[in-house]
Amino acid sequence: MSALQFQLLKESKDSMARRGRLTTPHAVIETPVFMPVGTQATVKTLSPEEVMQTGASIILSNTYHLHLRPGEEIVREVGGLHRFMNWPRALLTDSGGFQVFSLSSTRKITEQGVHFRSHISGAPLFIGPEESIAIQNALGADIIMAFDECPPYPATREYVSDSLARTTRWAKRCQTAHERTDDQALFGIVQGGMFRDLRARAAEEITALDFPGYALGGLSVGEEKPLMYEMVEFTTPFLPKDRPRYLMGVGSPDDLFEGVLRGIDMFDCVLPTRIARNGTVFTSRGKLVLKNASNARDYSPLDEACDCYVCKNYSRAYIRHLLKAEETFGIRLTSYHNVHFLVTLMAQIRAAIEEGRLLALRKTFFENYGYQVEG
Amino acid sequence: MSALQFQLLKESKDSMARRGRLTTPHAVIETPVFMPVGTQATVKTLSPEEVMQTGASIILSNTYHLHLRPGEEIVREVGGLHRFMNWPRALLTDSGGFQVFSLSSTRKITEQGVHFRSHISGAPLFIGPEESIAIQNALGADIIMAFDECPPYPATREYVSDSLARTTRWAKRCQTAHERTDDQALFGIVQGGMFRDLRARAAEEITALDFPGYALGGLSVGEEKPLMYEMVEFTTPFLPKDRPRYLMGVGSPDDLFEGVLRGIDMFDCVLPTRIARNGTVFTSRGKLVLKNASNARDYSPLDEACDCYVCKNYSRAYIRHLLKAEETFGIRLTSYHNVHFLVTLMAQIRAAIEEGRLLALRKTFFENYGYQVEG
Ligand SMILES: [Zn+2]
Ligand SMILES: [Zn+2]
Repeated sequence: MSALQFQLLKESKDSMARRGRLTTPHAVIETPVFMPVGTQATVKTLSPEEVMQTGASIILSNTYHLHLRPGEEIVREVGGLHRFMNWPRALLTDSGGFQVFSLSSTRKITEQGVHFRSHISGAPLFIGPEESIAIQNALGADIIMAFDECPPYPATREYVSDSLARTTRWAKRCQTAHERTDDQALFGIVQGGMFRDLRARAAEEITALDFPGYALGGLSVGEEKPLMYEMVEFTTPFLPKDRPRYLMGVGSPDDLFEGVLRGIDMFDCVLPTRIARNGTVFTSRGKLVLKNASNARDYSPLDEACDCYVCKNYSRAYIRHLLKAEETFGIRLTSYHNVHFLVTLMAQIRAAIEEGRLLALRKTFFENYGYQVEG
Repeated sequence: MSALQFQLLKESKDSMARRGRLTTPHAVIETPVFMPVGTQATVKTLSPEEVMQTGASIILSNTYHLHLRPGEEIVREVGGLHRFMNWPRALLTDSGGFQVFSLSSTRKITEQGVHFRSHISGAPLFIGPEESIAIQNALGADIIMAFDECPPYPATREYVSDSLARTTRWAKRCQTAHERTDDQALFGIVQGGMFRDLRARAAEEITALDFPGYALGGLSVGEEKPLMYEMVEFTTPFLPKDRPRYLMGVGSPDDLFEGVLRGIDMFDCVLPTRIARNGTVFTSRGKLVLKNASNARDYSPLDEACDCYVCKNYSRAYIRHLLKAEETFGIRLTSYHNVHFLVTLMAQIRAAIEEGRLLALRKTFFENYGYQVEG
């Protein structure tokens, strides 16, 4: 039995949206799904029980960060990342590639891999496809990612083309290096920058390697949203229908709708916890900045339409007080609500796909939220 | 019906220890009891549910801090402090006196009260007995405290004597000002510095005012522990047996034992949450500093003898990782364990009083913890 099954339950008639079910060793994941990010083996400020209560079935964690601290050997010795962080449901680890390129000040890319310096200690380090997979095998997530290069944006056509070819060669080496095919599913990553023909070539090369799932990488890297949507819409038809599709690093409410409408099944983003730590929350009526004075005597919940633990028990006035007083419990409450908001939005999106009313849901949601509805 | 009943259930034969039961509008509190501190309407890093899970039945919150931020009117408007912070069990508010004296840079004591400056905004403010009680009536805690002066240590006999006399006059004014005698019990505070005769005089004057409970103030302010124990032991016999006795600001494990042995029923202290934020935890074998390298690969729980949520689910290695990575969940886990540790220790102390083996429990606990056992 393989490490992952994907069932395609329903395809929309009026868009590329799909309703599916992903089965991993630790969870049955209804798709489309939003995956909260637990960079350093914790979803910032939240307990695993709280993340479960939001309805999340899978968390993303970061290979680069865990390799640097505490080191994958410690995680492996304690029985793997699920045990280490007390998270019984599914986990996905990224390859570390994105962080090697974005966080490290000096780096040198060779055919073998990437030489870089730790952003914590400055120590010289090296990660290539084999190293990334070895780390991910030690961590033991349900889904692991091929080591790729995410080209900068903007980048020249020549740079992206060379990078893409190397990413394909690295993808093959990742498959060869992967030692836990029984309980870890390795996904391939489709790069290609903002060039349609390169996206097509990348998709053809990576799908030819027959991975159990495919990610779209190198998007949401600074380009305008319409360009991102265009690239997603162009690329997904090159991916096999019977495999899950993951749009990496994307997770604002509008992007979740637009991604789903273009055939995406999986999303991850630090956005809900990051803005929560700044005191900003999602609501059905748009973003709310809690530190604004207008909330000082507002005894209503964060979102009247939300039935989460936070909205049932706490007022905007109390949460604002905690944030102003720099009390940790304040950012716990905003983080919980925001993760719950996106996880619940995805559940609403899934129901809408089943009932053939996703476009109508998007219209209502966007109007209430204050987004412009296009098309 | 008065706001508070106290039943004395058992008195020890070989010490001044007592086992009692305090009934307030929001909780039945078994004494001796440890009260976690929620300075700004939250026990730092913890949710109210978590504080309840530790077994705590009463939280202390700070009048001075809540007066400055968010202001008692906001708390009152939302329905009081219990509702504001979502804590259904008992609350105690201090009078603000201690913070006015310890946090404010400039202050001027008059017969009317204290002029001081906000430590947040620098704004000039005034709190006297009437103001303190009005704030505490607005907050609505089950137990409120008379506005007193906590003299510095060391202080001259003359200073302490004058201060004590003023504290008595203020205590009477607090009684007159108190408007919620039906559901808030006002405790008197016995000062007197480190002078036996002044402690005796303070106790006589304050008990003559017939409060439903009495606190010992002005201890644990920098004096040596033996001196503090001596003052407690000397003072408690002056207090009526049928009223609860509260030793303010005290809560290290040894002090809890020594206070109980000298007739104290209630304790509060920021210690468990403060050291937790530094990464230090109580264990049955003494304090543990998690950031020490020896914990990096230690997969055992914080305390083998502890059955709390943290010790059941997380390793020292994981918690150390979170602390080193500056992840909030790390200080949540250490805070939870430390509060649980003291609340559970008090439950053990209560059982030992019932069974006439408190001195034996102290001996075992101190030996394991690494304390010297005296006497
Ligand atoms: Zn909510
Ligand atoms: Zn514990």
